[in-house]
Amino acid sequence: MKLYNLSRVKLNNINPADITISIYGLGKMGLPLAGVFAKHNFKVIGVDINKKTVDSINKGINPVIEEKGLSSLIRKVTKTGFLKATTDGVEASKTSDIKIIIIPIYLDDKNNPDLSLLKDVVKKIGTGLQKGDIVILESTAPANTTLQVIGKMLEKISNLKLNKDFGLAHCPERISSQTAIKDIEGRLCPKIVGGSDLKTTRIAEYLYKKINKRDVISVQNPTVAELVKIWGEVYRDVNIAFANTLYLSCKELGVDAFEVINAANTNPYCRILTPGPGVGGHCIPVYPYFILKENTNNLLLNLSRQINDSMSTHVIYLAKEALKEKNIPLKDANILILGIAYRAGVKEVRKSPGIKIALELNSLSKTVYVNDPQFSKEDIEKLGFKYKEDFTKIDCIIITTGEKAFKKINWSMVKTQVKTKIVIDTKNIINKKALSNLGFVTKRIGYAK
Amino acid sequence: MKLYNLSRVKLNNINPADITISIYGLGKMGLPLAGVFAKHNFKVIGVDINKKTVDSINKGINPVIEEKGLSSLIRKVTKTGFLKATTDGVEASKTSDIKIIIIPIYLDDKNNPDLSLLKDVVKKIGTGLQKGDIVILESTAPANTTLQVIGKMLEKISNLKLNKDFGLAHCPERISSQTAIKDIEGRLCPKIVGGSDLKTTRIAEYLYKKINKRDVISVQNPTVAELVKIWGEVYRDVNIAFANTLYLSCKELGVDAFEVINAANTNPYCRILTPGPGVGGHCIPVYPYFILKENTNNLLLNLSRQINDSMSTHVIYLAKEALKEKNIPLKDANILILGIAYRAGVKEVRKSPGIKIALELNSLSKTVYVNDPQFSKEDIEKLGFKYKEDFTKIDCIIITTGEKAFKKINWSMVKTQVKTKIVIDTKNIINKKALSNLGFVTKRIGYAK
Repeated sequence: MKLYNLSRVKLNNINPADITISIYGLGKMGLPLAGVFAKHNFKVIGVDINKKTVDSINKGINPVIEEKGLSSLIRKVTKTGFLKATTDGVEASKTSDIKIIIIPIYLDDKNNPDLSLLKDVVKKIGTGLQKGDIVILESTAPANTTLQVIGKMLEKISNLKLNKDFGLAHCPERISSQTAIKDIEGRLCPKIVGGSDLKTTRIAEYLYKKINKRDVISVQNPTVAELVKIWGEVYRDVNIAFANTLYLSCKELGVDAFEVINAANTNPYCRILTPGPGVGGHCIPVYPYFILKENTNNLLLNLSRQINDSMSTHVIYLAKEALKEKNIPLKDANILILGIAYRAGVKEVRKSPGIKIALELNSLSKTVYVNDPQFSKEDIEKLGFKYKEDFTKIDCIIITTGEKAFKKINWSMVKTQVKTKIVIDTKNIINKKALSNLGFVTKRIGYAK
Repeated sequence: MKLYNLSRVKLNNINPADITISIYGLGKMGLPLAGVFAKHNFKVIGVDINKKTVDSINKGINPVIEEKGLSSLIRKVTKTGFLKATTDGVEASKTSDIKIIIIPIYLDDKNNPDLSLLKDVVKKIGTGLQKGDIVILESTAPANTTLQVIGKMLEKISNLKLNKDFGLAHCPERISSQTAIKDIEGRLCPKIVGGSDLKTTRIAEYLYKKINKRDVISVQNPTVAELVKIWGEVYRDVNIAFANTLYLSCKELGVDAFEVINAANTNPYCRILTPGPGVGGHCIPVYPYFILKENTNNLLLNLSRQINDSMSTHVIYLAKEALKEKNIPLKDANILILGIAYRAGVKEVRKSPGIKIALELNSLSKTVYVNDPQFSKEDIEKLGFKYKEDFTKIDCIIITTGEKAFKKINWSMVKTQVKTKIVIDTKNIINKKALSNLGFVTKRIGYAK
């Protein structure tokens, strides 16, 4: 059912089953979204260019996206018929009333946002676009992408007029890996919606109120919604840079940053974040560039990016200092990096500090080995690194994620395997005293020693 | 009673009335502290170099420190005899068991911390220092001031040995003007205490547990306590710089920053602060320099200071833009600054944005007038500004604090008085629509327009 020209009263009486939603992008964020809409009785057409993904979903099988509750959800909603998948984006656009785009937007080598994938999708949607349709962007995107890029493309391709024939909204995802389904349903955050006009905003409100049990908050237009998402992430980048600055400063004064942070945060107006080996993932290290390229007030963002990016060099400095205490030059050392995911519990390496550290060490040390319980030997070798299952020959262990398995390491056993007893802990998970008693030299981010 | 060598068990059985505390500095923070200790039955000797202040207190009269509940507290504790005041710092040191320093530490012209006042006080305390005494610094101070400056001075002057004959602690005040008494008693924050040794820390815990009903948190040493206080304030400076950056960036894109901030903050992990005309007061704009001078990791702090300091220039830019719309060059304009306090409700001008803006405008505009309900005509003239009670001749009104009186301004009346109808609102207190209807040109920090 076409919604764009419905009155508010009629809108609220519509049965979800009368609305067909196509969802473009069946990745780690898109598939949970498709599943949740289908669970709430919307007719959902999932669209993806990957035929294997589509075929798997149509068989009711999660195409190996590691996400809690997703496999059973997909099984259920394909069985009831509320979710179908296809590779045909044009046909899906033709047969759906609402089209939601939820594909990641990456950066190119020069940190410019790469909109090519997005534009491919918009072309397909535009080709199938009909009067009364609604198009929603959920992907986090540079400011003005929704109106200036998608809106203009859709008008040109479809020969329809925005805010007359069809509506456009930005409703940014606020999803974390591992809690995606719950996040979509409002675990932590209300949904933010910004339509190209009031009618579209109202439809977006209707839609997301059906699935987000917390709340739906509407903003003036899609650009505001874009900025809400971007600045929320940039906030974290700047505050992590602040925590890293605090740590480096405290270290110079011989003080443990964690003690300062914990005590300062007893003031309810103070919420200092945690220092670490850098910031990885699809969001925090990426979205500052969605603003940096847009305007001139970027000194603080630029500097914060630089501070967080340079933490990998600091980790290597810690390793070098520890090796010096054992009279081993870095160039002669065998290093084992524990953790190449960008954070614990996920099998994703985008902008991961572990990889950054490994790459930098490749040319500085003798050999760099890698282990991460989220990745198999094959995975790690495919990424171009040397896999290691034990600790033999190792001069220095660097922990870069807070994996459960790393917290449970039996250091008495490790002691018998390693060549040199050194641990660099960037995630505050080791017991320094216990390791010192075993003869390990340790260095830790967040502490003076 | 000398506490330094008492056991923990004995300490907990001591009656406050057996302990004499001298408190150095009876200003807006020191006098409430003296009052609260006296209220909890400690014998308190208040010390100040100002004889008028001391005489007034000894008569039971608050020496005009504007602080809620302070006058009645002083009346009460002088009547019971638990608070006495003196100008004789050496004698007060001789007759007290615990000496607390709570005087402000300012910056000199080059933003170097000026410790001269502090050293004067320490000299007096040192001269009267006896075995078993405890000295506590409550003033926020540059890192290492407690141990390296006060500790060394006390040892030299008294010929006593720190951590053998006497103890030293930093227990930073976490007090805001207008809520000082409640803050001391733990309205928001637990007390942070860091002693030069464990014995001293334990005594500080005993002492502050008597008055802070929230909690007392002990840290490893005085330097950690110094850093806790400094970084807590620097956190605010950096996050205000972030909010200002966000605002300036959103403005370029034609978006209201407040809408973005409010929506982003619906994520419980996001707590973006409020943009404004700069940061004033004794704390936030001062304490970054307590770190900046101490070590090299200062880029983020330096930049944040610069961003916040430059907001006054942005306010003048807004005034210029508004005047341009009325075809008035800034150099021909009569400006009225509403607010010279550093924030609403206080009669204090230290580092106030209103004053900074007024001074910058002095050479750029025709005449600058000032009004602030916290200050009389005489006060304002003493500060070197032209006082104005009405709105006649005015071309541009700039609001720099959120005073209640400014929120209640009758703009229909103002309209009949001013020469040109322009309002620059840096504190988000006007109703833009209402003022536009009255014919005012308005510019607001936090909004695109």
